[in-house]
Amino acid sequence: MQKRIIVINGPNLNLLGTRETDVYGTVTLGEIAAVVIDEAQRLGMDADFIQTNHEGDIIDKLHESRGKYDLVILNPGAYTHYSIAIRDAVKAVQLPCIEVHLSNIQAREDFRSRSVIAPVCAGQISGFGANSYILAVRAAALMLAENKGDIES
Amino acid sequence: MQKRIIVINGPNLNLLGTRETDVYGTVTLGEIAAVVIDEAQRLGMDADFIQTNHEGDIIDKLHESRGKYDLVILNPGAYTHYSIAIRDAVKAVQLPCIEVHLSNIQAREDFRSRSVIAPVCAGQISGFGANSYILAVRAAALMLAENKGDIES
Amino acid sequence: MQKRIIVINGPNLNLLGTRETDVYGTVTLGEIAAVVIDEAQRLGMDADFIQTNHEGDIIDKLHESRGKYDLVILNPGAYTHYSIAIRDAVKAVQLPCIEVHLSNIQAREDFRSRSVIAPVCAGQISGFGANSYILAVRAAALMLAENKGDIES
Amino acid sequence: MQKRIIVINGPNLNLLGTRETDVYGTVTLGEIAAVVIDEAQRLGMDADFIQTNHEGDIIDKLHESRGKYDLVILNPGAYTHYSIAIRDAVKAVQLPCIEVHLSNIQAREDFRSRSVIAPVCAGQISGFGANSYILAVRAAALMLAENKGDIES
Amino acid sequence: MQKRIIVINGPNLNLLGTRETDVYGTVTLGEIAAVVIDEAQRLGMDADFIQTNHEGDIIDKLHESRGKYDLVILNPGAYTHYSIAIRDAVKAVQLPCIEVHLSNIQAREDFRSRSVIAPVCAGQISGFGANSYILAVRAAALMLAENKGDIES
Amino acid sequence: MQKRIIVINGPNLNLLGTRETDVYGTVTLGEIAAVVIDEAQRLGMDADFIQTNHEGDIIDKLHESRGKYDLVILNPGAYTHYSIAIRDAVKAVQLPCIEVHLSNIQAREDFRSRSVIAPVCAGQISGFGANSYILAVRAAALMLAENKGDIES
Amino acid sequence: MQKRIIVINGPNLNLLGTRETDVYGTVTLGEIAAVVIDEAQRLGMDADFIQTNHEGDIIDKLHESRGKYDLVILNPGAYTHYSIAIRDAVKAVQLPCIEVHLSNIQAREDFRSRSVIAPVCAGQISGFGANSYILAVRAAALMLAENKGDIES
Amino acid sequence: MQKRIIVINGPNLNLLGTRETDVYGTVTLGEIAAVVIDEAQRLGMDADFIQTNHEGDIIDKLHESRGKYDLVILNPGAYTHYSIAIRDAVKAVQLPCIEVHLSNIQAREDFRSRSVIAPVCAGQISGFGANSYILAVRAAALMLAENKGDIES
Amino acid sequence: MQKRIIVINGPNLNLLGTRETDVYGTVTLGEIAAVVIDEAQRLGMDADFIQTNHEGDIIDKLHESRGKYDLVILNPGAYTHYSIAIRDAVKAVQLPCIEVHLSNIQAREDFRSRSVIAPVCAGQISGFGANSYILAVRAAALMLAENKGDIES
Amino acid sequence: MQKRIIVINGPNLNLLGTRETDVYGTVTLGEIAAVVIDEAQRLGMDADFIQTNHEGDIIDKLHESRGKYDLVILNPGAYTHYSIAIRDAVKAVQLPCIEVHLSNIQAREDFRSRSVIAPVCAGQISGFGANSYILAVRAAALMLAENKGDIES
Amino acid sequence: MQKRIIVINGPNLNLLGTRETDVYGTVTLGEIAAVVIDEAQRLGMDADFIQTNHEGDIIDKLHESRGKYDLVILNPGAYTHYSIAIRDAVKAVQLPCIEVHLSNIQAREDFRSRSVIAPVCAGQISGFGANSYILAVRAAALMLAENKGDIES
Amino acid sequence: MQKRIIVINGPNLNLLGTRETDVYGTVTLGEIAAVVIDEAQRLGMDADFIQTNHEGDIIDKLHESRGKYDLVILNPGAYTHYSIAIRDAVKAVQLPCIEVHLSNIQAREDFRSRSVIAPVCAGQISGFGANSYILAVRAAALMLAENKGDIES
Repeated sequence: MQKRIIVINGPNLNLLGTRETDVYGTVTLGEIAAVVIDEAQRLGMDADFIQTNHEGDIIDKLHESRGKYDLVILNPGAYTHYSIAIRDAVKAVQLPCIEVHLSNIQAREDFRSRSVIAPVCAGQISGFGANSYILAVRAAALMLAENKGDIES
Repeated sequence: MQKRIIVINGPNLNLLGTRETDVYGTVTLGEIAAVVIDEAQRLGMDADFIQTNHEGDIIDKLHESRGKYDLVILNPGAYTHYSIAIRDAVKAVQLPCIEVHLSNIQAREDFRSRSVIAPVCAGQISGFGANSYILAVRAAALMLAENKGDIES
Repeated sequence: MQKRIIVINGPNLNLLGTRETDVYGTVTLGEIAAVVIDEAQRLGMDADFIQTNHEGDIIDKLHESRGKYDLVILNPGAYTHYSIAIRDAVKAVQLPCIEVHLSNIQAREDFRSRSVIAPVCAGQISGFGANSYILAVRAAALMLAENKGDIES
Repeated sequence: MQKRIIVINGPNLNLLGTRETDVYGTVTLGEIAAVVIDEAQRLGMDADFIQTNHEGDIIDKLHESRGKYDLVILNPGAYTHYSIAIRDAVKAVQLPCIEVHLSNIQAREDFRSRSVIAPVCAGQISGFGANSYILAVRAAALMLAENKGDIES
Repeated sequence: MQKRIIVINGPNLNLLGTRETDVYGTVTLGEIAAVVIDEAQRLGMDADFIQTNHEGDIIDKLHESRGKYDLVILNPGAYTHYSIAIRDAVKAVQLPCIEVHLSNIQAREDFRSRSVIAPVCAGQISGFGANSYILAVRAAALMLAENKGDIES
Repeated sequence: MQKRIIVINGPNLNLLGTRETDVYGTVTLGEIAAVVIDEAQRLGMDADFIQTNHEGDIIDKLHESRGKYDLVILNPGAYTHYSIAIRDAVKAVQLPCIEVHLSNIQAREDFRSRSVIAPVCAGQISGFGANSYILAVRAAALMLAENKGDIES
Repeated sequence: MQKRIIVINGPNLNLLGTRETDVYGTVTLGEIAAVVIDEAQRLGMDADFIQTNHEGDIIDKLHESRGKYDLVILNPGAYTHYSIAIRDAVKAVQLPCIEVHLSNIQAREDFRSRSVIAPVCAGQISGFGANSYILAVRAAALMLAENKGDIES
Repeated sequence: MQKRIIVINGPNLNLLGTRETDVYGTVTLGEIAAVVIDEAQRLGMDADFIQTNHEGDIIDKLHESRGKYDLVILNPGAYTHYSIAIRDAVKAVQLPCIEVHLSNIQAREDFRSRSVIAPVCAGQISGFGANSYILAVRAAALMLAENKGDIES
Repeated sequence: MQKRIIVINGPNLNLLGTRETDVYGTVTLGEIAAVVIDEAQRLGMDADFIQTNHEGDIIDKLHESRGKYDLVILNPGAYTHYSIAIRDAVKAVQLPCIEVHLSNIQAREDFRSRSVIAPVCAGQISGFGANSYILAVRAAALMLAENKGDIES
Repeated sequence: MQKRIIVINGPNLNLLGTRETDVYGTVTLGEIAAVVIDEAQRLGMDADFIQTNHEGDIIDKLHESRGKYDLVILNPGAYTHYSIAIRDAVKAVQLPCIEVHLSNIQAREDFRSRSVIAPVCAGQISGFGANSYILAVRAAALMLAENKGDIES
Repeated sequence: MQKRIIVINGPNLNLLGTRETDVYGTVTLGEIAAVVIDEAQRLGMDADFIQTNHEGDIIDKLHESRGKYDLVILNPGAYTHYSIAIRDAVKAVQLPCIEVHLSNIQAREDFRSRSVIAPVCAGQISGFGANSYILAVRAAALMLAENKGDIES
Repeated sequence: MQKRIIVINGPNLNLLGTRETDVYGTVTLGEIAAVVIDEAQRLGMDADFIQTNHEGDIIDKLHESRGKYDLVILNPGAYTHYSIAIRDAVKAVQLPCIEVHLSNIQAREDFRSRSVIAPVCAGQISGFGANSYILAVRAAALMLAENKGDIES
């Protein structure tokens, strides 16, 4: 059966491509969604893609993902740095979770170098701009492959 | 012309697959090297792959990479957490650099959550085991593509 | 006249009994609600019992509690550790508030040992699993008794 | 053309005038809204005035302000001290923003002396009670005047 | 067979009801002892109740409790904040232990918000004045009931 | 009787308009003084305006202000960040004091975000350039109005 | 009626004059006791003088001082730096307390510069060797004089 | 030959008796000076007594004290907490120095508990109000007595 | 003449072999005492061996050791981490002191890695279980040998 | 079969006996090597003894020790305080490791009291000068004995 | 035209050669001034040389240096460690500034290792005693040479 | 006899003049070596000049300098900030050592402001670009002159 993944985007990512383009580039979140869904399809997975500015909505959505998806790709935006509630949600739903960031969060303000969510994720991909999402989809495919944990041949 | 990349591995990675296999898995560094070189080839790049336990050797090797490679994939091992000398070398050679880690370094001891090298890298991939390397090679291909910075189609 | 209390539960508590059962046990939040309401009834109080993942909803609900309830039992979940907004709401509504936790939050990760909400609560009960709620209801009864502040005979 | 400003109020400010009146005074938020709108009108500006307890709503509202308003006056309430998500929203919408506080937040608990939002605002006015809003409206008028940056004559 | 519990009180609690009555109330420790023993009796348990100002005596008493009691209720007084020796004693005797405090220790001086003993206790009850003890006795009854860990019906 | 205010400026402000004009603008302190005195006059107050680089002089001047002025507007310059002596002087003279800053001190170096003087001031205005002074004068007028504390009509 | 004072000495002070004489001098505690009692007598007070190495004994002794003495002179020795239990005892007995130290504790190791007991004492005298005690007795006389708080004439 | 001492008072002490009288009492600095000079006379010493708000003046005065005085009594006021320059001056002049404070600086704000000057003083007397000065004069007499370091008989 | 040593054991060590045997092993303190005394005898020394849970008793015992023993072996238990009073006692008695620990205290909780007593001891031996004592006795023999400080041949 | 151990010495230890002889004594590393090898022989073990100033060499040597030695005695010199790479190597090779130091590192500069390597060692011996090595060899013998973990008889 | 430099010396440097000669040597500030002026002359520069204990005077003098001197050599004395006001003055006058210290400030008390002024200076020379000044003059000559920034030939 | 000095350069300095030329300038290390050797010659000293990226090599080289050189000029590069091993080597060889830096390390990232090596050097020169080396050679000449410690005439 086809694997299903969901990509959850946190606060301010809806403005992507229209704000601080020197930092985040000109690609919009809609364009990323399109490419992510295609790439997932190409790798034999169905992908959903959502965005919200509300911490509670991210938690609700994570809860709903149980039983519906096999893996979560999560860009928590600024909640990365303080939302222990999202952290607990990721841990509680017990789905593998990949944390992605467009920018290299360790090369910015000090307070951005700490992710309270990272410790409960499987892995992290950050700094590749929109490509961080493409790589996360591929990582998802590798993780969900039958020979999970092995090197794909 | 074919792009060239080098994968530099730091201290203790030579023991991979033979130590703490519950944390790092049973794949050896040699097996990773083989897959990395193949994957690079598949994506139209030549890859070299080395390992050393010596901080100074990593710096020397980074210096020699200038003019010889187009991109560096770096797993600094434990030097991640304190080698400002390697950080300066990465910055000085002005090649794009991708930091990779087998394990999710943010899910381990507190002192492992800080990377002094991350701020001078382009991006980071961590937590996917041997697959972190595969993903890094693909990230390298994306970064080195002509339409660098755009979403690949 | 019959006293009224409200039990407000924060993020991820809806998953109780279905996640991390080694830490939180197998009792569901619904089962706790039933027992809490019964125990309150037995002690001559009416109890309402709600849960939400949204910080803002907890604040709204606290505001609405003024004039409607005599006391609040609050399990802020992960918001315990950073929601100064909930803290201010507790202080603002000027109802006695009892903070409860299922687990002993001081025996877990360091960041869980700090409650930003505790300083504005009357008291705290933590670590007794579902029984924390039972004890909180009894504490509420003691606090709301006419001879408030004295030892009940 | 008439300039437009929006005044956004964060958590618990709806209780103003009814809670902790020794700290915050007896003026209600509705009364402040009325005076703010009048003062704006007197200075040739249209003002909208809203309040919400939800962090996500503040972010949504900031996003919607782009193209609709020329300047934001923001009292983030307790979110002042930890909402990096609101900070990012202020930065992203690229409207001038004035942070206001009723009380002198530096004369209260230690944790209130840090504003994570201040660094992305144009300026701050705090400690003048309801007058903080009047002064902010006047500051807005000065900032939006043609000879912006100069001393008004 | 009848369960047995011991209530151990640390430094300065002997002065209860005679000092700082605005903080601690006018009930004396003797009065609390009487009510605690009664309440325990009512719940089918025998209770002993002691007080000492000596850290070493608390440790000695904890050691002697092995085999003699089924559960310890401990108010370590000021030792709460630094006596790692008492912490180790609690852990060593391997009896369930409930930490109680008359006042809400998190609402007082900063140094009182840290309990070095809490991490080795089963749970904590604080802030309810003399009632903290009553609640602790009831918590003990719940914990020692056959259906330990379940909700009592 | 006409109210009297004094504006006290600390170290390096005499260079205003001639140094770091990208940060502080090109308006000189003399020009600010002129506008401040006019604005005060317009609002029915007499204003004096002084500057000194000496911490001791600021303290002396604050002492002399007792009985002579009704309110102090203070820009302590760099002393903001460490002069507990000026803080004590502000507190001792028991005149209402408004702290002003030209730049947004929270958007600069870390050490500038802390004001040791703010806790003893009535309020703060910062980040509006020379307009910070205009706003402070208006704040003074509001504070000194008969209906002090109320919203002006 | 004759005033009564007690001088309580903490751990290791019994070795005075026989250990580390370069730091503490060659005067023994017995010699200090003799002079203290004489000086008190000269000033119209009865003085008792005790020493113990036990934290609990100091607390017991402080408790017993209520009703028996008018003032306590306390040299807590090393307990100065961590005994919150002694601090609470000083506060609880509500007798004026003068903290004395032979050496200048702020000129020694960093950890000696913090006194957890000082905040609940009336005053402190340190660094004058055996004379610290003489001065404390005189301070006691001044504090217990009828015109307490005034300058003695 | 008659010994000579100087009492140097730092910032804001000139306001003594006229500000914050609940903290500092109603005795003026002039009254203290008179009593200090008398007490010194009574003990066979000449005393000078000065006050300044200027850090530099305190340093100048300390320098001038070499050769002119045998001992310094210093109340550095708020400079206590940060003036390393005064600390260096005290050390440089190599006169014995007694630090005095009216209030118990360890019972006030956290930042007042640190004295950067204490480590280079002989001793400290704090918390006795105006009597702190009287005690310091007596301490001076003891220190300057021929049998310096011994107990006076 | 035969050398004499004393082994002083702190809190909870009396429970050795009966508590947390996974951490501390099953050997009892009595068994260790027997082996220690034998080993000392074999190396030509007389050994005494005591245990107490009381901080004050350890200090008393250290004081009594002067003149009676040539060296102290000290396992301060949990007092290791905060008893400055024991530290001062070790320093005061001026006997060589060897600190021993059964477990590797640096491999446990963070707060156990700091020993306030270590700086005044000659050396430390930790992590070898009961053998830590054997090694300490041998270290004592080496230290007390005539050719003290040299390598034994 | 005869057990084999290796003693690895880190930076600057080659200068032993020729530098800072007041701290480290006059014994050279060669002399220690000789005694260590003899003592090992006496206890039925073969010992190798090496020194290097290179962090990478220590790691290489630890790697090579697998299969060749039964236990490592390690004096990491200054690398003790920051070489996480050596720490990882010790952990990776899974040989029991004893950390030794000539001096009592906890009695020196603050930064020397932290060992990043200690948590992965079996035990530590420090402060006995050259005898630290002798004791480590004896500890090795005890650990490698058949009845490992028991008290030797 | 001849270049002009000014050497500004901060608090307590006037006592040079007469205080703490073990740390600072026996050369007086007057002697240093003479040599500095000569050395400047030899290198084709005019030098002025001043000293003051007043922070405000240093700021005033820095302001007056604009237009009058080409470079400042500054020994801020103890103000090095906290005078942000001097730092701002150095930055404001936009003259190249060389910070000098007689002693190696990083080898003394911890608080002396931080210079708040260094970040706005061109360079620092410390630890060479009076020769620090000579070297600073030569550094000034190098910086003011036409081929500024190049190596002098 | 001619004095001999050695200049030791740490990691990445070999890239000088070819990397980050905006920070470090365009002069190469080879050019600096040439000028340093010439300047030393001019001042009557022989200079050697080396560079290595290896921490261990720097230590080896420092060891070899004993007896061969009279003084060391050391630019530890990034090792400045963490190599306690190099610090110990500098201290062990007991040659006077001058620390140099091209850039003003206190004006860069926070972590660069701390030098762990500075406390064991004689002095520091930083911020003068290549001229830092010239000045260090001159400082060496001053230090090695017969009238060492005096002002040269």
